[in-house]
Amino acid sequence: MTENDAVLAANLEFYRAFTAHDFEAMDRLWARRVEVLCTHPGWIPIAGRRAVMASWHNILANPDAPLVMCHDDAAYLYGDIAVVLCEEELTGGHLAATNVFIKEDGEWRLMHHHAGPILMRETRREN
Amino acid sequence: MTENDAVLAANLEFYRAFTAHDFEAMDRLWARRVEVLCTHPGWIPIAGRRAVMASWHNILANPDAPLVMCHDDAAYLYGDIAVVLCEEELTGGHLAATNVFIKEDGEWRLMHHHAGPILMRETRREN
Repeated sequence: MTENDAVLAANLEFYRAFTAHDFEAMDRLWARRVEVLCTHPGWIPIAGRRAVMASWHNILANPDAPLVMCHDDAAYLYGDIAVVLCEEELTGGHLAATNVFIKEDGEWRLMHHHAGPILMRETRREN
Repeated sequence: MTENDAVLAANLEFYRAFTAHDFEAMDRLWARRVEVLCTHPGWIPIAGRRAVMASWHNILANPDAPLVMCHDDAAYLYGDIAVVLCEEELTGGHLAATNVFIKEDGEWRLMHHHAGPILMRETRREN
């Protein structure tokens, strides 16, 4: 498995944990040695592992939390940090997500998640 | 000047260039040695320097482009990569921004910008 594949696998695990309301898996996915950050759709940013994980606990404890599917995922590697850009398809809309990972103890772990609504599609990725 | 201050200064220069419609300054701010990424509010992600800078050229060439002020900016350093989370105040609304910088040739340069609307404020940063 290439590093690119490993980052994309960690990204898919994030969406699996989200959709399965699997808080333990979500907690394992987030970095422990660096400050973690999260900007949920429509929220102001949250910093700090305790606050970020509390936000996920609340979201995943809600039985009405939306199902989320990830597609058009692409990983960009910068040494021990990687950025995944993807689209999230939810009941109720589409979001553009930025997921930043850091390699800790040989594993790619989330250090930042930012998602916000997609309203326009006229510009396409260059490749 | 600490590294933290240097990152925040680069972040403020981004908003200065934006509000001044200063495309040359905007172009100087973006990294040249790595893939750059950008998720404008409501858009799908853009990857690649040519496409990202073309999007900024179009935005800054528009005389009706909104004025943007940045506040509540905080920098998080991870070696040669830094994340700035801040709020953008525009004519017409508030956005939460993620700006990712990389240190190139001794300068902090943008490698990713993602902004999206703020709709809720019930959760506050932990500190």
